[in-house]
Amino acid sequence: MIRLFIRDDLAAGRGVVLDEAQSRYLAAVMRLSVGDALLVFNGRDGEWRASVTSLGKRAVTLAVGEPSRPQAGGPDLELVVALVKRARLETIVEKAAELGAARVRLVVTERTNADHTRVDRLQAIATEAAEQTGRLDVPEILPPAKIDRLVGEWPQGRRLLFCDEAGDARPVLEALRGEPAGPWAVLIGPEGGFSPAERARLRELPFAIPASLGPRILRADTAAISALTLWQAALGDWRT
Amino acid sequence: MIRLFIRDDLAAGRGVVLDEAQSRYLAAVMRLSVGDALLVFNGRDGEWRASVTSLGKRAVTLAVGEPSRPQAGGPDLELVVALVKRARLETIVEKAAELGAARVRLVVTERTNADHTRVDRLQAIATEAAEQTGRLDVPEILPPAKIDRLVGEWPQGRRLLFCDEAGDARPVLEALRGEPAGPWAVLIGPEGGFSPAERARLRELPFAIPASLGPRILRADTAAISALTLWQAALGDWRT
Repeated sequence: MIRLFIRDDLAAGRGVVLDEAQSRYLAAVMRLSVGDALLVFNGRDGEWRASVTSLGKRAVTLAVGEPSRPQAGGPDLELVVALVKRARLETIVEKAAELGAARVRLVVTERTNADHTRVDRLQAIATEAAEQTGRLDVPEILPPAKIDRLVGEWPQGRRLLFCDEAGDARPVLEALRGEPAGPWAVLIGPEGGFSPAERARLRELPFAIPASLGPRILRADTAAISALTLWQAALGDWRT
Repeated sequence: MIRLFIRDDLAAGRGVVLDEAQSRYLAAVMRLSVGDALLVFNGRDGEWRASVTSLGKRAVTLAVGEPSRPQAGGPDLELVVALVKRARLETIVEKAAELGAARVRLVVTERTNADHTRVDRLQAIATEAAEQTGRLDVPEILPPAKIDRLVGEWPQGRRLLFCDEAGDARPVLEALRGEPAGPWAVLIGPEGGFSPAERARLRELPFAIPASLGPRILRADTAAISALTLWQAALGDWRT
């Protein structure tokens, strides 16, 4: 069944006018008809059944029916990832949504050779992945910030799983053993790795837990998926 | 440093004539010069330093120098994966190489809508990923087989981690607890899932351990990466 993320409040009997992109998707791509059923969610009011009430080229309207699932949040897990090439960054954002990350922070490091990206495009990818994976919220994509500034303003109480490719860190599962489930972030560096100065600084941070992702060199997208998976399995909602 | 997988035997002082594709890569893409250093491996004789001795348009020659790493195999871990769309299958093969799978078996299931693929192209992707990830062998890509036949001829002693999206299986880390490290395979179904009949048959196999990959719907590539990661972390070479 099609699932759509919308901005409107959701309640039984409400009418919803979809935006042009979603209208085109339902009418032209999925070829829905008046009366067809779908699911809608907005990240606040849970998931609801809805049905198509009119099909215009630029505006499809829906009527909200019964609730199908109450709102539920996932774990407070962030992905902090260095800007990498566009295709891999898009994969990382899609996978972060599937793997239940609450938000994705883009960071600029010494060996990052870009300082901007199309955040709106990444947000659209995250939204589509959230629709398909069945979650009830959409991860927020935050614009690039310098890593020094990010760790300088780090909020109290959030731990950071620092995926350190340099090799002498403990394996992730061992590093996470006995740690609390509370707010976390996973940090993935650029393809060229962190500079020695960055590594030294990251390893000294009191909230950082350095960990190793095995003996082989991983691309940034693989490292991000593996680290989020291991965190979810050890401390997140894959445990039950 | 560039790493190349070659077919020739490797020993100090040997000369190697590269094939046309590798010659073009070194000469035209990487723009190496005579005397430049690289690393070579063949899956049998370990990794060796080598240097460019001549640069032709169609044939680059190398001289093998000193050994840099002795041959070492990874765990005996197979990925058994249903044929999915080309782009995702290519991602899966690349990631299986990075994550240390020994081989990839392609399978046709009831809900697979293809029965062939370019195995030679997938093998090339696996080779390139093996070169970049630093491993000393290349995962073998086996041509598609029907899943019924594959499980009917299953070798004694190999366990199968059956990633079952239907939801009542135990989490992977729990399912793997106490299991031996010996030969294993990870099974990932098609995007539409296994049919009820296939699921019932798979769950009855004495060598199959059903396991869940969390509460969200994962694409096949994400499921493959997550399952290989968890196996490596629980029983493979990510433990130390």
